[in-house]
Amino acid sequence: MTVTAESIARAHERIAPHVHRTPVMTSRRIDAIAGADLVFKCENLQRMGAFKARGAFNAVLGLSAEDAARGVYTHSSGNHGAALALAARERGIPAWVVMPQNAAGPKQSAVEAYGAEVVHCAPTLAAREEAAREVGARTGAAFIHPYDNEQVIAGQGTAALELIEQAAGLEAVTCPIGGGGLLSGTAIATRWLAAGARVIGTEPEGADDAARSFRTRTLTPLTTPETIADGLRASLSERTFRIMLDNVDAVLTTPESAIVDAMRLIWTALKIVVEPSAAVPLAAILENPEAVAGKRVGVILTGGNVDLDALPWR
Amino acid sequence: MTVTAESIARAHERIAPHVHRTPVMTSRRIDAIAGADLVFKCENLQRMGAFKARGAFNAVLGLSAEDAARGVYTHSSGNHGAALALAARERGIPAWVVMPQNAAGPKQSAVEAYGAEVVHCAPTLAAREEAAREVGARTGAAFIHPYDNEQVIAGQGTAALELIEQAAGLEAVTCPIGGGGLLSGTAIATRWLAAGARVIGTEPEGADDAARSFRTRTLTPLTTPETIADGLRASLSERTFRIMLDNVDAVLTTPESAIVDAMRLIWTALKIVVEPSAAVPLAAILENPEAVAGKRVGVILTGGNVDLDALPWR
Repeated sequence: MTVTAESIARAHERIAPHVHRTPVMTSRRIDAIAGADLVFKCENLQRMGAFKARGAFNAVLGLSAEDAARGVYTHSSGNHGAALALAARERGIPAWVVMPQNAAGPKQSAVEAYGAEVVHCAPTLAAREEAAREVGARTGAAFIHPYDNEQVIAGQGTAALELIEQAAGLEAVTCPIGGGGLLSGTAIATRWLAAGARVIGTEPEGADDAARSFRTRTLTPLTTPETIADGLRASLSERTFRIMLDNVDAVLTTPESAIVDAMRLIWTALKIVVEPSAAVPLAAILENPEAVAGKRVGVILTGGNVDLDALPWR
Repeated sequence: MTVTAESIARAHERIAPHVHRTPVMTSRRIDAIAGADLVFKCENLQRMGAFKARGAFNAVLGLSAEDAARGVYTHSSGNHGAALALAARERGIPAWVVMPQNAAGPKQSAVEAYGAEVVHCAPTLAAREEAAREVGARTGAAFIHPYDNEQVIAGQGTAALELIEQAAGLEAVTCPIGGGGLLSGTAIATRWLAAGARVIGTEPEGADDAARSFRTRTLTPLTTPETIADGLRASLSERTFRIMLDNVDAVLTTPESAIVDAMRLIWTALKIVVEPSAAVPLAAILENPEAVAGKRVGVILTGGNVDLDALPWR
């Protein structure tokens, strides 16, 4: 099996009763600064505040009744954990989320507020994998990986599907890259529905495993990513790397200061709350204006779950 | 002449090509906290970031060609100045905005960015009136008062008109009260289009001239309002006071801390940026839950022009 246009279309139908068809927004001010015609897909206004609801609902709703009954689990220090908790609650099944002890308080609260159980582990990859194995063995629940999962990828692709329906004539579609789930779904949806449009992934310089992997055509994970864009610290999997090689036209990167500036510009001009990861595509566009000059570009604003007590411009 | 349902309908038609039909938003989380079914009219997503664009466009577009040619002027330390500047620019006429020297930098920049001239004065009522008189005498421009102006009131009423169209079955409509322009337009529109709905004005305790005036049925201006809700420091005029007495069912007030909490709740749950004044209706509802318990309530979020470097929860 692989992720196809059909699986994205099926995902869209399946999750439609559970997620928002988020609006798109535009800003003359941002367009003037970017020298392009940008259409923002507001997944910060998605349920639980991020596009991750799409993939999680698709994965949870795709389980057989028998599998679903045993529940679901994942590891996530971010939005995927809350999304899985929400989807599990709506299906009426239990969920466990492995999180490092040092995960941000609001992220843990979100998972618990949706009724899932947080399983703490030490903040290392080995500890996380061990904790996840233990949860799986103990509960028999289904593991829903944050991005290395075809149902999750198909679900994430529904954001681009809607964006392309909402904004006619896109010449490029861009989104941030963490583990590559959103990029994969976005790329497949765009190839299918807006065949002439360029697919552009964007990444912080401090977590540029996808840019390196794309350039060298060799999967090159990063062990110590450093970026304020906490949703983008994961590295590509073999699966998302392959999809990227087959379907993505360019990967742009941005320094940290540009991410903060772009985040602030979005808050000021669009009057919406987005998290740092969501500002990475605009930052990368403003850092690499020639990539989209004069073009009509769809930009996926991935989420809005930010700690209001720790804003980066304080 | 007086403000009527017809003048609001006419205003809506006149300004439609120039302003956004802003969306409405809802939040299960806020509804659970409020114990009511709240529909937020997002005027923070209006052009220049506030409902004030509506009144300013209606006033500027309502001028005869001859009057318009001499330009417009006003006094405002807030959104009305920027709104008038924007409307004047789109009509191609000059605008002057009298502002106290100590007005917030971003507010001055906004007025200048829209091409109007800022005229500074000392931060007293007498100095402001003297400066405004001087501008009027020198330029022959038309004075567009921030709220004591029937075209402005009719324009502000178009927000409630749209809200009532967008949200069927409202049992109450609420907005903040500064000088009473928005409240006047909202009350007249609601009486006309949602005759059974209660009209509820809301105000900070530290700027409660409308609450006092409503209770005593005697116009009682405040000379030293103190509130973080900088858009609500003005006092009612005789005109807006009369409209309030005839058309408003209740005035609720809120302490400062509740305004900050409500502002933060809106940012967190709706993922949108609103200024303190815009949070006053929700704050007043949460402070006076019995006023709307179980009801479907339209809430006008008035604006989103906030200084991101001076957030109240820092």
